[in-house]
Amino acid sequence: MSADGALFLRIDGVDVDPSRPAIGAADRGFNYGDGVFRTVRLAAGRVPAWPRHAAKLASDLARLGLGPLDPAGIERDLAHLGARHPECIARITVTSGTSARGYLRSPDAALTTVVRATALPAWPAQRATAGIGLHLCTLRLAEQPALAGVKHLNRLEQVLARAEWNDGQDAGETQVATAEGLTLDAGGHAICGTMSNLFIVEGGRLATPDLSRCGVEGVQRGRILDWARANGIPATVEALPLARLHAADSLVVCNSVIGAWWVARFCGRRFMRPAWYDELAAALDRDA
Amino acid sequence: MSADGALFLRIDGVDVDPSRPAIGAADRGFNYGDGVFRTVRLAAGRVPAWPRHAAKLASDLARLGLGPLDPAGIERDLAHLGARHPECIARITVTSGTSARGYLRSPDAALTTVVRATALPAWPAQRATAGIGLHLCTLRLAEQPALAGVKHLNRLEQVLARAEWNDGQDAGETQVATAEGLTLDAGGHAICGTMSNLFIVEGGRLATPDLSRCGVEGVQRGRILDWARANGIPATVEALPLARLHAADSLVVCNSVIGAWWVARFCGRRFMRPAWYDELAAALDRDA
Repeated sequence: MSADGALFLRIDGVDVDPSRPAIGAADRGFNYGDGVFRTVRLAAGRVPAWPRHAAKLASDLARLGLGPLDPAGIERDLAHLGARHPECIARITVTSGTSARGYLRSPDAALTTVVRATALPAWPAQRATAGIGLHLCTLRLAEQPALAGVKHLNRLEQVLARAEWNDGQDAGETQVATAEGLTLDAGGHAICGTMSNLFIVEGGRLATPDLSRCGVEGVQRGRILDWARANGIPATVEALPLARLHAADSLVVCNSVIGAWWVARFCGRRFMRPAWYDELAAALDRDA
Repeated sequence: MSADGALFLRIDGVDVDPSRPAIGAADRGFNYGDGVFRTVRLAAGRVPAWPRHAAKLASDLARLGLGPLDPAGIERDLAHLGARHPECIARITVTSGTSARGYLRSPDAALTTVVRATALPAWPAQRATAGIGLHLCTLRLAEQPALAGVKHLNRLEQVLARAEWNDGQDAGETQVATAEGLTLDAGGHAICGTMSNLFIVEGGRLATPDLSRCGVEGVQRGRILDWARANGIPATVEALPLARLHAADSLVVCNSVIGAWWVARFCGRRFMRPAWYDELAAALDRDA
């Protein structure tokens, strides 16, 4: 394991010592954030819902005018990883490669593909049983339709939003930790957590924010929408003013690492655990 | 020289082979664009107006909640570079270093400092004599006051805008090359070139866009504002709707690599070379 916690590093299909510098200083991912990524959890050596992640990587690259992606190469990387570290977190980063200095891409550049793995985080089990606290971030997301929905490498807004609170430690059985922050757009609509998508529960119906102007459209969000529809739970994608959250029965945040967490506390109010929370969590753990 | 054109690479004050990977895969510059940069031109081994660049690096880092910067370390890097390559382009990148996976910075992380140099670009002299063509980009800049003005590493908007045109080659003495693109905000105000700041000339007065909601506040822009004021040319910072550009006498774009270029052609109209263009260009070449 390297000093920064990496278990495994593979670049463009080649194993690399994770304790050594591995990215070229000319890489456009480093210089401009010109690329995309996914963070996934391996379970028993496999990535649940991998075809959705591969499709999301390809479509995100296409949104940036990049690609085509070679999913088979990444699948080989993940197979090597899964054989050595069956339970871990993998980040897959794909950049536009190198170019001469400047914003213009090189038409013949090959993409750079980085698969890097770290250990599973040691989250307290109480986040599923007791819920989490959700911080309301003061940073508002900028509206950029050309990039909305894409999990690209320009993540300064999330870095600044995540720096707003620092009480992420779970202090005891009865205390709810502030484990995520919610960001709004300039108009005051709820968009995303810093690292997650949001669902609200209103009288047995689910709703999740429209992400056509900002935010990241995560794979887990799509899986929850499909799960809800398959289980007869009405689920919509729409603009969600903050007031809808204050009045909701329950709030849930999700991503492909945490699965789904229900929110016990937000803006001074307590929220309920959704009746179907355990069923949802089990469904997300399945390889679908 | 490395395959990607680097003459020189120094990371955290240590010389590195520019043909080898040099950035850690855990670096937050690579993973999130969590950092800032400057691109400067060395002339006779020195960077004109270096104190302004050092101040801009420090204030940009502070805007991101990073720092303090060690300018003396970067000055040593630049002295090493200038002794070996007195005429070149240097990019100085400073990131938030490494952290555990996730958007939360490590409170004890050291900044990563990268100084990388490439050869002077071979721009035709006609860009100063015949002017340039300026493309009007369809991509609109998102408004994010928390990041406006800062030259940070999240540059996907500039990458997408720069991909809109591809006729940057100067084809002959009489042809004006499209050497830059102008980006507007969502409200239709002129903000920046993809790699430059903009000035407009109206009846002997200068104006440059207000950058409090988007855009990069470049060092060369500040130098031109100071030069104008010192030379009795009225100069203002204000919101500039596109119509003001269409009606202007002259347009000028500037950065610390190109100096200043005057615009001969924009949106089908011809523009004049400013009467004081040569004086301005000479002033920008001086070490002030």
